Amino acid sequence: MTTEAETDVQDGRDEAFSKWYIDTVLKAELADYTAVRGSMVIRPYGYAIWELMQQYVDRELKATGHQNAYFPLLIPLSFIQKEAEHVEGFAPQLAVVTHGGGEELTEPLVVRPTSETIIYDMLSKWIESYRDLPVLLNQWANVLRWEIRTRPFLRTAEFLWQEGHTAHATFEEADEEALLILKLYVRFIQDELAIPVYQGRKTESEKFAGALSTFTMESLMGDAKALQMGTSHNLGQNFSKAFDVTFLDREGKRDYPWSTSWAVTTRLIGALIMVHGDAKGLRLPPRVAPYQVVIVPIWRKDEDRDKVEPLVEDVRHALGDAGVRVKTDWRDQVTPGFKFNDWELRGVPLRIEIGPRDVDSESVVIARRDTREKTHAPVSGIVDEVHTLLEAVQANLFAEAARYVAAHTSSADTWDELRERLIDPGGFVTVNWCDSKECEIALAAEKATVRAIPLDDREAASSGPCVCCGRPASFRCVVARSY
Amino acid sequence: MTTEAETDVQDGRDEAFSKWYIDTVLKAELADYTAVRGSMVIRPYGYAIWELMQQYVDRELKATGHQNAYFPLLIPLSFIQKEAEHVEGFAPQLAVVTHGGGEELTEPLVVRPTSETIIYDMLSKWIESYRDLPVLLNQWANVLRWEIRTRPFLRTAEFLWQEGHTAHATFEEADEEALLILKLYVRFIQDELAIPVYQGRKTESEKFAGALSTFTMESLMGDAKALQMGTSHNLGQNFSKAFDVTFLDREGKRDYPWSTSWAVTTRLIGALIMVHGDAKGLRLPPRVAPYQVVIVPIWRKDEDRDKVEPLVEDVRHALGDAGVRVKTDWRDQVTPGFKFNDWELRGVPLRIEIGPRDVDSESVVIARRDTREKTHAPVSGIVDEVHTLLEAVQANLFAEAARYVAAHTSSADTWDELRERLIDPGGFVTVNWCDSKECEIALAAEKATVRAIPLDDREAASSGPCVCCGRPASFRCVVARSY
Repeated sequence: MTTEAETDVQDGRDEAFSKWYIDTVLKAELADYTAVRGSMVIRPYGYAIWELMQQYVDRELKATGHQNAYFPLLIPLSFIQKEAEHVEGFAPQLAVVTHGGGEELTEPLVVRPTSETIIYDMLSKWIESYRDLPVLLNQWANVLRWEIRTRPFLRTAEFLWQEGHTAHATFEEADEEALLILKLYVRFIQDELAIPVYQGRKTESEKFAGALSTFTMESLMGDAKALQMGTSHNLGQNFSKAFDVTFLDREGKRDYPWSTSWAVTTRLIGALIMVHGDAKGLRLPPRVAPYQVVIVPIWRKDEDRDKVEPLVEDVRHALGDAGVRVKTDWRDQVTPGFKFNDWELRGVPLRIEIGPRDVDSESVVIARRDTREKTHAPVSGIVDEVHTLLEAVQANLFAEAARYVAAHTSSADTWDELRERLIDPGGFVTVNWCDSKECEIALAAEKATVRAIPLDDREAASSGPCVCCGRPASFRCVVARSY
Repeated sequence: MTTEAETDVQDGRDEAFSKWYIDTVLKAELADYTAVRGSMVIRPYGYAIWELMQQYVDRELKATGHQNAYFPLLIPLSFIQKEAEHVEGFAPQLAVVTHGGGEELTEPLVVRPTSETIIYDMLSKWIESYRDLPVLLNQWANVLRWEIRTRPFLRTAEFLWQEGHTAHATFEEADEEALLILKLYVRFIQDELAIPVYQGRKTESEKFAGALSTFTMESLMGDAKALQMGTSHNLGQNFSKAFDVTFLDREGKRDYPWSTSWAVTTRLIGALIMVHGDAKGLRLPPRVAPYQVVIVPIWRKDEDRDKVEPLVEDVRHALGDAGVRVKTDWRDQVTPGFKFNDWELRGVPLRIEIGPRDVDSESVVIARRDTREKTHAPVSGIVDEVHTLLEAVQANLFAEAARYVAAHTSSADTWDELRERLIDPGGFVTVNWCDSKECEIALAAEKATVRAIPLDDREAASSGPCVCCGRPASFRCVVARSY
């Protein structure tokens, strides 16, 4: 049982983590608050991380046959209302344009919270026969969902994302597509962001408004709360029917296409901070670090500056030519110690210090941000050494995060046990679950939700009673407190 | 003097050109109309052109020290009202969000028509001293300006652009920046889009709402009308003062930074069509062509298909490996002739035809889209031949466009002469100009405007009377009918 004292400790920890998160976002100049409630500015350093994420995802989506397009920002309110579950899910979050060009509009337009409706309206013009399928579209865009409680990157009214929208001739093809994208996302988040994910599907009440099934990836943040990292939906024929999109199949029979949608967002920048960050600030995985290496020249007197400059420039060029993203910090109004702190705060994976003695010894000091270990490396082999260390940092950040997940994953057979596990160790708790609305409500009272039902049938199989109501369970699943 | 019959002919030509333009946009699947008045969908083929434009501009902006960021879509209405000229210019074009999350907002928010105001509000937090300058920001974003008459790409309510915003310690630095960007744009449009531009600055009444001076690039479309291709503004201290952005200079004195803003938009896709297109459709310059080469295999019987396939694949791989964007059209439900027309419509610079006889002769036919010339090329030297031809197409499209501009540039000393020149040859007419409001009104009655005052002082110098009022002219400038 949770005592009041325990709850206070928990709340205190939550508050401290939350404060650390906001401080890190602001001090590392990733984002800033604006005068517009719930909206943030993504500052250059934060945006550079997003661009590296975009490059990877965009390349992988194109390699799997998807094409980028751009659909309108403003959507007629009546479109949102065509799919029953969709409007129920999104109506409370809409921003509505009522006036344009100085006049009241005859029909209000909503700022897109997502683009299914406007895209299906177009597909009804573009799709005639099976030859036009599959349609594999993606869009990089801003979307807006009016949120009460916001936090930079994690939950803001406006955010940036890619939204994929595809249409297929059969249910099977659509389901394959939704799972293909899930795998693509998992590779992206694990390999590039160095964040372990738990894959699965959502329960009825947690799935996307209008979807047949929603596949999800869940990760644990540094406070042992889960974060939904991205979702991929099999929409069935729901939107095709709502927007009367039909096609002639190979037999000349008219049918509704089966479709999917899927997205990852700037929220992932928040995940990077919360998974890898420490008391000194960010720790960025090299693959999404705007600067992978920062060179800090060490000098006091001008003659020392003149002495180190050629070597600093040589190292910078050698690394730059080898494809390493490198920054040299020549600022003269701050000390080397200030610079060390500054770049540690910003999470640059490697720091190279070059002083007058290093010029004499033809070697430099390389400091790792993740372990804070320092090594001496001869200048002659600097490129290989940096590549090796960058790979080591990338691997170590993933390994550290994986250990954290392992330490914060447990299972529970009874309600009391579940309540305890949600606090200690926190994180993911595996339970038998009946899949009823009532049990989800009971779970919500514990500030927890079902995060994912395993995709693997054996893993999801249950023979025991529901941890909540004791009736026969439908499956084993993972529950957690979450963002 | 223009007779009524002449006006009818002119109107007829305008209408035909306009119809050809829209037909080309729709048939080549660059864009489509949507249910939202004034908004378009940019379809994958059109968006791929935009991505190639983005890549070039983004790379050049980063190489000149600019950083990308992202500012909010929604801006408080009161912000827009802070700079007097700015609100006057943009107020009639605003889309206004009055409701969010089911409630009426206490202050309406506008969908950004441009982002100066929200950015300056942030700069007032970020800039403290001369050490924080220059600020060199860029944003890739959607913007919205309520337009009465719209046309895909050329003028739509919502469009995509990059908007640069910079702040500097001195007027001179800001002016240099505005001109640096103008040169960057000119290189982009001439070298990549193969479109000649006329550079200059705008008159008082044509400049950006809130700018000290606006630099512009003007090009002639295929109907001899001018199109503004992009602008770069020296904003002076107008926005700094309106948003109380100040900095401590080197002497410890508080001052307002000097700033610039500049943009190019998806309108440039419209320019590509109107400058290079012909009766068969698009003619894309190779540097911004999503596919630079399309391979059309020729076969009737299955055995012929089997025979040509290995060579088609070899050529595709060789070109792909050499960095050529290449597409193979294996569709079996349409004829080679249909494919030829289809890819000509889409403006692919080179078509390679490969049939059974080509396999025997180890050579292929390459057809140029621009001149429609065909050449035979041995397979062994295909990569070099394609590179040479792509460069030739790029150069030829620019040369053709430059000849068109030369044939549609004239000068006029009297009002009657000007009115005649505006119709025959049309295009740019150079005149002496007094720079008065009244003369601009008289010019507007001829459906023309001052497009640009030359940047070169000697070119702009005038000793004659104003072509309109006869008073001493302030400068020589270029007038034209325009989009």
